Formats: sequence, C-alpha cells, structure tokens
Amino acid sequence: MAISEPVRRILEGFDGERPGTKAKLASLLMHGRLAGTGKLMILPVDQGFEHGPARSFAMNPAAYHPQYLFQLAIDARLSALAGPVGLLGACADRLAGEVPLILKANSADSLAQEHDQAVTATVRDALELGCAAIGYTIYPGADRQYEMFEEVRDGIAEARANGLAAMIWAYPRGGALAHEDETALDIVAYAAHIAALLGAHIIKVKLPTERIAQHEAQDAYAGRNWRSLETRVAHVMQAAFAGKRIVVFSGGPLADQRELVEQVRAIARGGGHGSIVGRNSFQRTHDEALALLDEIAGVYGAAEKRVQA
Amino acid sequence: MAISEPVRRILEGFDGERPGTKAKLASLLMHGRLAGTGKLMILPVDQGFEHGPARSFAMNPAAYHPQYLFQLAIDARLSALAGPVGLLGACADRLAGEVPLILKANSADSLAQEHDQAVTATVRDALELGCAAIGYTIYPGADRQYEMFEEVRDGIAEARANGLAAMIWAYPRGGALAHEDETALDIVAYAAHIAALLGAHIIKVKLPTERIAQHEAQDAYAGRNWRSLETRVAHVMQAAFAGKRIVVFSGGPLADQRELVEQVRAIARGGGHGSIVGRNSFQRTHDEALALLDEIAGVYGAAEKRVQA
Amino acid sequence: MAISEPVRRILEGFDGERPGTKAKLASLLMHGRLAGTGKLMILPVDQGFEHGPARSFAMNPAAYHPQYLFQLAIDARLSALAGPVGLLGACADRLAGEVPLILKANSADSLAQEHDQAVTATVRDALELGCAAIGYTIYPGADRQYEMFEEVRDGIAEARANGLAAMIWAYPRGGALAHEDETALDIVAYAAHIAALLGAHIIKVKLPTERIAQHEAQDAYAGRNWRSLETRVAHVMQAAFAGKRIVVFSGGPLADQRELVEQVRAIARGGGHGSIVGRNSFQRTHDEALALLDEIAGVYGAAEKRVQA
Amino acid sequence: MAISEPVRRILEGFDGERPGTKAKLASLLMHGRLAGTGKLMILPVDQGFEHGPARSFAMNPAAYHPQYLFQLAIDARLSALAGPVGLLGACADRLAGEVPLILKANSADSLAQEHDQAVTATVRDALELGCAAIGYTIYPGADRQYEMFEEVRDGIAEARANGLAAMIWAYPRGGALAHEDETALDIVAYAAHIAALLGAHIIKVKLPTERIAQHEAQDAYAGRNWRSLETRVAHVMQAAFAGKRIVVFSGGPLADQRELVEQVRAIARGGGHGSIVGRNSFQRTHDEALALLDEIAGVYGAAEKRVQA
Amino acid sequence: MAISEPVRRILEGFDGERPGTKAKLASLLMHGRLAGTGKLMILPVDQGFEHGPARSFAMNPAAYHPQYLFQLAIDARLSALAGPVGLLGACADRLAGEVPLILKANSADSLAQEHDQAVTATVRDALELGCAAIGYTIYPGADRQYEMFEEVRDGIAEARANGLAAMIWAYPRGGALAHEDETALDIVAYAAHIAALLGAHIIKVKLPTERIAQHEAQDAYAGRNWRSLETRVAHVMQAAFAGKRIVVFSGGPLADQRELVEQVRAIARGGGHGSIVGRNSFQRTHDEALALLDEIAGVYGAAEKRVQA
Repeated sequence: MAISEPVRRILEGFDGERPGTKAKLASLLMHGRLAGTGKLMILPVDQGFEHGPARSFAMNPAAYHPQYLFQLAIDARLSALAGPVGLLGACADRLAGEVPLILKANSADSLAQEHDQAVTATVRDALELGCAAIGYTIYPGADRQYEMFEEVRDGIAEARANGLAAMIWAYPRGGALAHEDETALDIVAYAAHIAALLGAHIIKVKLPTERIAQHEAQDAYAGRNWRSLETRVAHVMQAAFAGKRIVVFSGGPLADQRELVEQVRAIARGGGHGSIVGRNSFQRTHDEALALLDEIAGVYGAAEKRVQA
Repeated sequence: MAISEPVRRILEGFDGERPGTKAKLASLLMHGRLAGTGKLMILPVDQGFEHGPARSFAMNPAAYHPQYLFQLAIDARLSALAGPVGLLGACADRLAGEVPLILKANSADSLAQEHDQAVTATVRDALELGCAAIGYTIYPGADRQYEMFEEVRDGIAEARANGLAAMIWAYPRGGALAHEDETALDIVAYAAHIAALLGAHIIKVKLPTERIAQHEAQDAYAGRNWRSLETRVAHVMQAAFAGKRIVVFSGGPLADQRELVEQVRAIARGGGHGSIVGRNSFQRTHDEALALLDEIAGVYGAAEKRVQA
Repeated sequence: MAISEPVRRILEGFDGERPGTKAKLASLLMHGRLAGTGKLMILPVDQGFEHGPARSFAMNPAAYHPQYLFQLAIDARLSALAGPVGLLGACADRLAGEVPLILKANSADSLAQEHDQAVTATVRDALELGCAAIGYTIYPGADRQYEMFEEVRDGIAEARANGLAAMIWAYPRGGALAHEDETALDIVAYAAHIAALLGAHIIKVKLPTERIAQHEAQDAYAGRNWRSLETRVAHVMQAAFAGKRIVVFSGGPLADQRELVEQVRAIARGGGHGSIVGRNSFQRTHDEALALLDEIAGVYGAAEKRVQA
Repeated sequence: MAISEPVRRILEGFDGERPGTKAKLASLLMHGRLAGTGKLMILPVDQGFEHGPARSFAMNPAAYHPQYLFQLAIDARLSALAGPVGLLGACADRLAGEVPLILKANSADSLAQEHDQAVTATVRDALELGCAAIGYTIYPGADRQYEMFEEVRDGIAEARANGLAAMIWAYPRGGALAHEDETALDIVAYAAHIAALLGAHIIKVKLPTERIAQHEAQDAYAGRNWRSLETRVAHVMQAAFAGKRIVVFSGGPLADQRELVEQVRAIARGGGHGSIVGRNSFQRTHDEALALLDEIAGVYGAAEKRVQA
Repeated sequence: MAISEPVRRILEGFDGERPGTKAKLASLLMHGRLAGTGKLMILPVDQGFEHGPARSFAMNPAAYHPQYLFQLAIDARLSALAGPVGLLGACADRLAGEVPLILKANSADSLAQEHDQAVTATVRDALELGCAAIGYTIYPGADRQYEMFEEVRDGIAEARANGLAAMIWAYPRGGALAHEDETALDIVAYAAHIAALLGAHIIKVKLPTERIAQHEAQDAYAGRNWRSLETRVAHVMQAAFAGKRIVVFSGGPLADQRELVEQVRAIARGGGHGSIVGRNSFQRTHDEALALLDEIAGVYGAAEKRVQA
C-alpha cells in the first residue's frame, strides 16, 4: 500500500532520521486496521515481568501462551506487538512478518524496592528478531533516572544507526513524586517532553489528570480550564514537539469498555496518535478483546473491516 | 496482510534463519501486486554502473532521475527495487517505506578489463537505508571468482546476523567460459547451485539456453529433451535446493513485449519465483513499462489490480 | 538415536533459536536413562561454592573428588552434570563426551552478606570445555537483581550466538522477601516467568509451597485449591510460557527417599520437565544414590535399565 | 552411551586438545551404526559445488533436495554429514541433533582454472549450525598450496579454541604433479602427513596406488611389496602419526558395490578409520545406498542392526 | 631432568589444561632442591607492598635490595620466587632463567581501609618477564569478594590461554568474619575450595586452627578430632579437589625455627604440597635463612644437597 497522506505528514516530522528508521515508522503506520490513518494501536505484553504472571494472565489463562498474545495482535490487526526479548523470541520465528514487533529492552519486576529497570535486550536482539523498533521505560523523577536516561540514549543511538525506530515509555515515578503526581498534567507533559528530547520517535504516557503537581508550574497552567481530557491530551501533544512526535496513551488496568472508548474519543479529538492496550485486551476473552479493539479502531478512523478480504 | 499459504511454504524452506531474515523475505513476498502469490517482480537499476548512464537511460531520459526509478517501482507496485548505495540513498529518505529495497553491494563497470566487482556498500548501509536485503554479484568461472565468493560470504554472514536477507546475482563469466557458455543450461544451473551453497536466499540468473557447456556434464544431461524453456527453468529450480531457494530470472536487454511475456509464462510454469525486469521496464516509457509489468504480474497470478483501492 | 517425538515437540517450542542451540538441547534430552522421554535429571555440584566443601561433601567424603561426581552422573546415566569452571575443568578432559556438561557461570559463597553472585566463567570457557549449556543464578527481589539480570542477558546472548543453550537458576531472595516467601507459589511462578522472559531455555526453580506472598497477587490466586503439589507445579509450568520452556525442580537438602519420590511424582503429573538432584544424590553413598536416581528415573518413564547393554 | 574402549584409545591420541574438541570427536565416534567401533562412515556432499549439480544429482534426482541427503545420513545411521554452509543451513534447524555435522568451509568449482578453494564459511557458522567439526581441503603441490595451508591453519586454530574438531581433505594436485601422481603412494602418504602436521584431527585421503611419484622417494619405498591395498593403507596410517590421527578414505566416482566393499576390507585390515562415501551413496537409489552402507558398516564391525529398536 | 613419578601424578590432575600450562607447572616442580619430589618451596616477596618496606626489611636491610631476594631464592635453590611486577622487573633480566618466577598480579597496602586489592600487573607482564605463573589474592567473605573473583577469573583465563599457570592466595577476610575466623578450619578449607573452583592450579592458604567458624558447618565437622595440624592440613587438601590441586601453606610472621619445622612436618604428613616462606626467610640473615630452608627442604624429602654438583 502506498504511504497515505496522514502518514506522510507524520514522517515529515522525522526529517533527518535515517531512511531505515523512517521506513520502520512507516511499517507500523501502514500495518493493520489503522494502516494509513496516522493512528496506532499497540499491544504491549510486559505485564508478566512488571506485575507477575498470575496477576497478568490468570483472568484469561489462554494468555499464558505467548502465541495467544501474538495471535491476538494479528487477529485484531493491530499496528504492533511490544514485549521483552524472551516473549518475542518465543514466536517471532513461526509468525515472522505477521505483525510488526517492538522489543521492550528494559524491564522491572514488582519485587524490586527501587525505581529502576534492568536492560534486558540489545539492538542486536531487535535486528535478529526483525523488530521495527526498540523501546525503553524511563522513570523521570526517580533516584536513578539519569542512569536510565543514559542507558536509553545509548540504546536509541544504536537503534537509529541501524535503521530502527525508538519508543519510550515515560512514567514519572519515585523521588519526591507522590503517587497522584505521577499522572498530574504537568508531570505527564514533562515526561513526554523529556522523552522527545531523548530522541524517542514514539512516546507512551498515561492519560493525565487535572492535577498540577509542581508548585513552580502552577502559574503556567493557571487561567485555563483543564477539565476535559481532550484538552489535556492536546497539551501533552504540545509538549511532544507540538505533535511532531508520535504519542500513544495507555488505559491502565482492566476497565469498563464504555469508559475506555470515551477515553479513546478524547485521545483522538486531542490529537493523540493512538492507544496502547494491554491488560484491557488480553485479560478479556478473545472475542471480547476483538470487540473492544474493533470499537477503538473505529474511533480512530479505521476504514476497513477487521476481517480481511 | 496475513502471510499467505504460498508465502508460508516458501518461508518454511528457510528454517534455521533468524526471525528477522524471514520477516524481511516475508516483507518482499507480501508487498505490491504479487503480494501473497509467492512470486516476485524486482526492478534492478545497476545498469548505469554496469553499462554507463547513456546506454542505460538515453532511450528514456526520465530514467536519469533516481526518483523516476523509485516511482516506477512504486507505481507498478513491484516487490522491490534493487540498486547501488548512491542510487538508493538518493531517494530512500523521501520515499521511505513505499517499496522494499535491496542494496546492490558490489558493482562493476564496463571500462574494466577483468571480471570482478568492487564492494561498494556495507550491511550497515543497508540497515541505515532500511533495506530488506543486500545483494552481490558473483562470476562463477572468472579468474577472481574465489575472492568474490569470499567477499560475498562475509556480506551474507553479516546480513543474516542483522536480520537481513541476502541475494546473489549469479553470472557465470570469464576463465574458460565462452560467451555462449554463460547461459548454457548446465552452467546456469551450476551458478544457481553455487549461490545456494553460498547461503543466498534469493538467486538471480539469466534464462538458460539448451546448450550444455561442460564436457563432463554431457552425460548427466543426455537423454532428456531440453527444448522447452519451462523444462530448463525447472532444472535450474532443482539446482536451487529443489526449489527451496527463491530464484528470479532476468530478461536481459530491451526486448519485444510478447517475447518477454512468453518467457514469463515459461518461468511460471517451470516453478521459478519471478522476474527481475530492468532495462525492459525503465527503457520503455512510463506507460509502456506499466503495461508490460501489468501483463507480467497477471501471468504470475496477481489477484488485485495495480491501482490501489 | 533418532530424536523422539516428545523431544521433537519440546524443540518446536524453541523455534527461532539457532540450529546449534537446538542441537545442544537435543543432546541433553537424548542422553542417558531419560533419553527421548522429554524429561531431564541433572546433577548440579555447586554446593561446595555455595555452602562450603565440608557441609557439601563430609557426609560422603568420596564426593570431595571431582571425578567421583562425574562418575556418579555417568553411572546413573543422568542427562547432565552442572558445575563451576574449576570443577568441570578438573575432569572434562579425561571424561570428554561421557556426560553432557552445563557450566555454572556465576557463583556465590555463604560468607557473603549481600545477595549477589560473581561471574566466574565465560561462554568461551563453556566452548573449550565442550559444554552443552551455560547457566546462571538470578535472585529476583534482591537489591542487585537488575545487575544480575544484565549479566545473565549478556551471557545468554553470547551463548546463543555460539550455538549453546542457556539455563537459569531462578531463586527469589532478598529485598522485601521473607525467607518463607522464597518458595511461595506466586513468587516461584514469577521467578520462572522472569527467567523465560530473559531468554532461558532451561529454568530451575524450587518446589513451591501453598503460600501466596504478594498482597497484590492474592486475587489472582483466590478461588482455586492449591493444596496439591501437582497443581502448583502445573501453575509454574503455565508461567514458563505455558510449558514451552524446560523447567526442572530441585529437591533441596538431603531428604527421605520416599518423600523425594513423591515429589517427583507430583512434578511428573504437573507437567514439569524433571529434577535437579544434588545433595540428595552425592551426599548418599554411591549405591544409595544410584538406587534413588533409578527410582526417580522410573517415575519419569525411563524405558531402559540403567546398566547398559 | 559410555565411551567404548576403541574410542577411548583414539581420544588418548589427542591429549592436549581442549576437552570440547575431544568431546566433539567422541560425538562422531559414538554416533550411528559404527558407534563405539572406532570407525567412521561420513557422507560428504560438496560434489554439487565441486562438479556441478547435474553431474552430482541427475542420476538420483531426489538428491537435489538437501533434506534427502540429511535423511540418507540419518537413515543409514552414518557417523556424520559433511557439506558447505548453504547445504547444512538448509536442514540443520529442522533436523537439529539427528546427525553430527561437519562444515566444509572451503569450496572449489569445476569452472576454475587454477587449483585453489574459496573460504566459504567460518567457525562462527559452524558453532551456529551446531557442527562437531569444520573441514578444509588442501592441495599439496598446487601453486597456491601455501596460501591454502595458511587459511586452513587459521581455521583450525579458531576451531580448537572454540572446542570444535578439524578435518582436512588432503588432495595432492597441481604444480608438477601429473594426474596419476595424485594417488601415488608416496604422495598420498605425504599429503596425510602434511595434514597431521597442520593440526587436523581427521584426515581424508584417496586410496593410494602402487605408484611412487617422487624420484627422491624411490629409495625409501624400495624393497617392499606394495601390491596389496591393505599394505598401502597401513603405510598412510604410519604417515598420520603412526595412526594417532583419524584417517578416512574415499571411494571416488560411482563404482561397483563388490569392488567398493573389497576396498573397505583393505581399509579395515590396514588400520584405516573408515570411509567417506559420497557419490557411491547418494547417486544410488535410497534402498541401494542403504544396502551398500549396511555392507560397509558390517565390514567395519557395526554390532547392531541399522533399524533402531 | 626427566619428569619424576610424583610430578607426573600431580600433572595428571591437570588433564585438560593446555600443554604450556602443564609445562609451566612442571618447570616449578622440577626446579631446585625439591625438584621431582612433588613438593614446592616458594619465596614470596610482596610484604613490602602489603606491610610497608621497613616492617618487611629493616630487620635484615640487605633485603631492601631486590637482587638480594632473587639471590636468596637462587642460593636456597627454591622452586620459585613470587612478587609484584616492579620487584620482578628489577632483576628478571640479569637473572633470567636462574629461578622460576610467579608474578603477583594484584596487591594491597596497609593504608587501605577496605578489603580489596589493586590489579597491578597483567598476563602480558608475566609473559614478558618469563614467569611460570601469575598469582592473585582473593578475600573470601569480604564485601568486594565477588569483584575480586571476577578479576581473578579474567586473569586466570588469559593466563591459561597463554600457557601460564595460575596461583591464588586465598585469604578469608572481612564481612562477617572475625579475625580468628580467618584461620578457622572450615573457613580455610572453604577458601581453598573456592580457589580450586575458580581454576587455580596452585593455592596458598594459611595453616588452619581447630576453630569452626560457620554455625551451619558445625555438624559437618562434629565427631572428628581436629587437634592435630596434620589432620587439618589433610582436610584442606580434601577441599582442594581431593588433593588434585597444588596447595602450599604459609608460615606467617617471623617465628621460631623449631616451631616452623614442626609445622612443615605436619604439612608433609597431611599431604600438603609445600611451603611458602617469606618473612621467615628474608628477615633472617642469609646464612640463617639458608639453614632454615635447608631443614625444611629436608623434611620435604630433598634428595640432594643444596650445593649443586
């Protein structure tokens, strides 16, 4: 399929990147149900590492099978599947070429007592597995945030030199941040901006609340009405180089479908580039997950039906 | 698009390759008009290097523009465009993601007096340009053939380690080979076999004649009727690991369209994996080229129309 | 011996690994009394490092001799012997080819005050010694767990690139984990899952108790009866990519033979891939050890007698 | 299977090799029908490269399929299959662990006009493919023999450092040697000795004739009766460090079964370590090949039947 | 001199080591007064680094001269001289070949506040100086013990790859160990075992006391009478791969000659491989030192007189 106009405009925001990196971004944006719309739907499966297997998969035990997770991304015709090296390696061969892959190259577990992540994969792994992108989590605000930034920069630089795209999961956390600050509007926007400044092509943040956490930032946010999620999403997009970086938003833990779809509408209206839907997809049954993802895809403007001709 | 059955069967022949390499092969086989058919149509543009620019492009001066050549591959919805690093680099950025690319990593010119090629690009170039594959010419029979084999093996090993596919243009030439031996059936089959043994995933050879050049091989070919091109193509496929390697055939210099299409029919019936059409496409006008490529695609079983929905 | 069907099915779970790595896994699964059953019995001898020589070998002083330990693995026709570089190096030459070897490449001693291990061997050591696999301990939950994960990933990546298999001893320990949490069901399953995500082909965990240690995981385990060991083993297998990774269970300190064999029955019924039996074999006399290992092998379905024809 | 006495004695000849190299030699000597006898039967398939595909496979077209060749080695329960990287790579994954592999790492074609070989594979390839050994051809006497010796030494040193075994195909050829000199007794013995001095663990030579080619060597051979092949084989064994190196002999082009078996009897009586049987096996039908290999195995003392229990 | 039977038996314990490493061990075991006895007497001079020059040499100011120390080892016909790179470098040239050298490659000073050592020399230094072995100190139990183990493993691996032998000074220290624990029997045996597992060919420990320091080890030592030093030495030898590793014992600070010789008798009866005598030799006058070393050599069975024929 020829590159669509919406995708071409997004790619123009990446002038100066090597052609390979742009081609990888194009491969994500031109794949699946949302191909050509300029929107992305990504299935991330690192919750087994982050929260443990039973908390992630016991609700829908089929999801213990890596192949189930791949197949879900393929059946729902999502833009990409993201996961740690062991998970991608378990099916990348058998299902080579069926769905774009994003290698989640650092990981944390819930047994840890500090906010940090282990670097668990390399750009070489991503190339061998045929991934379109490599991704890293950063914890802006955490005691070890700068070490994380440095690890991530190393990875992004090597990824770009090899024609891959780079994604950052930007999760403010730790240090002086209270739990409710982690999704405060100023903090989420700040995290998205740091990710852009670190060179991410794709940025993943949580949906921001109305809260403004940094005292020094209060003035900057004063006098505007932040009550609508759409407005807050639009502000995060501003922080991501005025929308020149690709920003996707997450839904968090299993939630009501209507509520989720409302959020997606706000993301779309606010100019966000899409959704990353993990637990809300693989913790539902296969049919319920497809129904939800169908509805989300519809909001993002999918032209074609999920079922392939 | 989900991997089709014909493509899945081809990929099964590449058991043991890294997932990235398989995914790259899939990306060629699932792109363009022939997507999913298990056939390939490749536009190669290294004739400027090999024969000089005027001999290559004067007939259709638009083809002096690299972008014309890219656009031809895009408009005709071909499986891939192959060319030297300078040519690919001239447009890979602007047209990133529009057509799979194959980096022709060694090149020769017609000013040379020995049969050899210069290595003019690296796997790193291919990664930066977002190529699906890297390709090399070998001249079995030439005085420097073994140096060429060694250069090619280095390149293929590095390509595979980085999740790329590898293509070999296998052109018997030089040494004791007379000009008419270069397309002799035994020699073409031998060249395809050497390419497979050197680890090529995709092999390009010329269409073989009925001639048997090696005295010692006469017995092995005796008692069979090699008059039909289809039978000769089928024999070349045998030599390519019983058809487990992807073999595409070239048309050579500008030729009559009817004759060319007849050849394509023979390739298809003989089990070949497709055509590489250079001068016969870019030396025609854009419209004539598209008409020819349309007809070839039809023979290879393209289901959909060239014009995208 | 031709690869048996159970082994072939296990190898299919490793699609995408290099042929050398698969061949090494096959060499473990096709060796000794359990050859072809899809089960493994491994003799690990790193207790001298971990607990000190007298605590490990004083009960059966013959075991101070490295050759005794090799010979025990050979006589009992076990699947493999695992140990640190000095131990394997002491006999690998004289007994080359008699029993598959797994190089335990990091080690800790009981004089240490923090939960960590020293990297004491390299992939190059493993190649020189002719090992089938290289193995590492991780301590999920420990303060230094992420450094350990990174060391292990480096080792696994290099092992795979050289056609070796990789094993992880996954021992949750340290940080906020109480001693009894280390064998809690949720924690053991979590550790096995992390090992799989880090790319281990073979995972070693302790047998899990009924305890659920993580507060946040209680819900995921509620409403199911975890009283039988078999059910708990089956849950750990789920966490190891739905049984696609090879998981072996340990017996711990010297125990009663009947109790041990009961545990083995539960491992077998729960779908575990076998046992790693250290102190329970080499702290018994040679005859008692062989008798115990015979009985365990019988449970796992060894078809042939220990004594070779 | 425990290492047998005959194999143990052979391994003692390799004192000072790394354990991994010895274990790889043991894996060849303890595999298949001849396991434990101290004899080897190897299927080499590089004739496609050396002579061309039709001359090699047209007589038995099934042999164009790499998998046929693997399966022949597996069905006949041979000690190993040897071939170029492309051939081994075509099936090493699917058939991982079924038969030991020897990577033929240099290759020549019959289009060449000088006596040389291209280095077409690396030790890294051998490790990835799970090979037991890497092998090279040398042409003692050829104009480029010293370059070949240097390439081979590089490869052998790297192989040994990585725990692999090394094999040399020692074919005197070129320079001042007449065609009939290539199999002269003094020349074959000389070639075997050079291979041993270059560090080969396994040496492949052609069966020697009674001819003495070097004038200066006439005296050394005078006064002994070389009429029996057995005596000549025994002399070649002398030249291979008094039999401390493993020497296998080839049969050459397709020959009469009775004649071949007579030769095998002479090899066995002369103390040779076995046969390398290429064209005489894969140019026969599958059944005829198995029958021939059965008979050869019987001469070498195979205790068990080919059909596995 | 031909390798004696006792030395041959020791070398057999190093099966699998490269020939160069074995030859270096042989050069130590076949040099000086104890040549061929299977025993070693080593003069270590790193006390200047460890304790300061005056504390080391003021008692016998001649010992400030490096050449004095070399000459002492030469005159006493000791097995080897061990020291830091600067000390060996001061005389290795003039006295090349007079006495085997062991390069002490890490060092600590008494100004330090943590238990660690600096790596102060390389395998390359050892090769340039013509050393037979390279040596390292480890502090099992110290907070930085694992970093030390990793440094030592790197060094040993490189030493072996270059045909050198490796020695470990195993000194439990730091962490939870009380000063009197450092020579407790269980701890010394543990330290010797760790050194063996790390691949040391020669291990140096202090003479153990009757104390058992680790609570968990009490049972393993219960019910045996450890009162005689000989029995304790014999236990340490057990811990060193049942005596397959070379273990030498130190005398510590300047002591009474009779007491020292009694200790040596216990070492000899317990199966130890000899003594390392530093301060007790160079802090005595030259004549007294020679007299003491004569007596020790006599106990170890030196057949010949010190004065060379």
